[in-house]
Amino acid sequence: MIIYGKNTSKEAILANRVVYICYLDNKFKDKAIENLLDEKKIQVKRVSKEKLNELSDNGLHQGIVLNVGDYQTYTIDELIIRNPHDVLLLDRIEDPHNFGAIIRSAEAAGLNDIIIAKRGQAQITPLVAKIASGALEHVNIYLVNNLYQSVLKLKEAHYFIIGSSLDGESINSIPDVKKVLIVGNEGEGMSHILKRSSDYLVKIPMLGTANSLNASVAAALLIYKLKNLI
Amino acid sequence: MIIYGKNTSKEAILANRVVYICYLDNKFKDKAIENLLDEKKIQVKRVSKEKLNELSDNGLHQGIVLNVGDYQTYTIDELIIRNPHDVLLLDRIEDPHNFGAIIRSAEAAGLNDIIIAKRGQAQITPLVAKIASGALEHVNIYLVNNLYQSVLKLKEAHYFIIGSSLDGESINSIPDVKKVLIVGNEGEGMSHILKRSSDYLVKIPMLGTANSLNASVAAALLIYKLKNLI
Repeated sequence: MIIYGKNTSKEAILANRVVYICYLDNKFKDKAIENLLDEKKIQVKRVSKEKLNELSDNGLHQGIVLNVGDYQTYTIDELIIRNPHDVLLLDRIEDPHNFGAIIRSAEAAGLNDIIIAKRGQAQITPLVAKIASGALEHVNIYLVNNLYQSVLKLKEAHYFIIGSSLDGESINSIPDVKKVLIVGNEGEGMSHILKRSSDYLVKIPMLGTANSLNASVAAALLIYKLKNLI
Repeated sequence: MIIYGKNTSKEAILANRVVYICYLDNKFKDKAIENLLDEKKIQVKRVSKEKLNELSDNGLHQGIVLNVGDYQTYTIDELIIRNPHDVLLLDRIEDPHNFGAIIRSAEAAGLNDIIIAKRGQAQITPLVAKIASGALEHVNIYLVNNLYQSVLKLKEAHYFIIGSSLDGESINSIPDVKKVLIVGNEGEGMSHILKRSSDYLVKIPMLGTANSLNASVAAALLIYKLKNLI
């Protein structure tokens, strides 16, 4: 797939992702990245800015576009076997900007296992990779057919399910058990069935009059709190 | 100035901002907003989508564009007189998306007093108003010539100055005193002179390999922690 942008490209190369070809702007100059491309013996082609705009679908490419091997995804059964301590489950995040931003925040907080549905949810695209700013190299994405069935499997595997909802409780102390944090859709929040399946519902206090938070900001607050980092 | 989008427009009308005219898409339908426009006796003009694209500079207008009275800004001396308990100072946030998102998060956390510089910083624009999603109606923006001089005035007025920096300390307990939180530029962080002027430097822990957070996410984490909301 196509990825672009300095950070995203650099992280992909450093993570030894297969790079079929690297397109650089005729005027591109960044010694660190050029040395890295040399060192990793990556095929480089200098092209016009217009060509890069076209390749990146007018993304903020910063003069660099890569054609790389697809990101590997995993199944829920692979997650159960791998048995990570903390898991993030996204319940139909639709906006690719939010999805990318959440991947970035989760990775920064050391939450590297993320479950998403195959449909009704932003998927891994060049834009998501750009917004995630390299973090996509370091997380495992689990693609599932049915979020509810996945939650049932996680419960069987002794995961504590933490939903987030405006009618939840303020987050105090989260027990140190294997857990899944569910973050809901931008407009509707969590689906009813996932809410009912949750062992505990948390909320983020909002004091303002306008009374809303961007979905990726809300997710970051929950993730950081859950990881006991703030 | 021009503002657009359903939330931003609705909050402006509810806050009794002067509305010179409201442009609606020929096909716009939203009973709540249409009733509100009626009730407030706002002049409405139905126009084409193309006209709305032009008026909003191709913003995500959702079929509604308003021409409203400018947002009032204040001076640092007015802040000192008003004497709010908590203040946010933005040290050269350049990206209007980040600026808008930070206003939205601050307002949601009840932090309603924000200092910005007149230059080298994103200003209040239609895009910022859209991203802030109505929160701009409920915050006070203080426009200053010089951030350092402002910090000196704040110190004289017995504010505790909290800077944020990667080499700061993890946030534990913040004393319950009048305080200013400084959030730095997206790339460079805080300026040296503001860092040296800070009474305390805090950081957000980052565990990941990619090791970065979006500026507006980092700001939200600091704001929520500082307000003791998470």
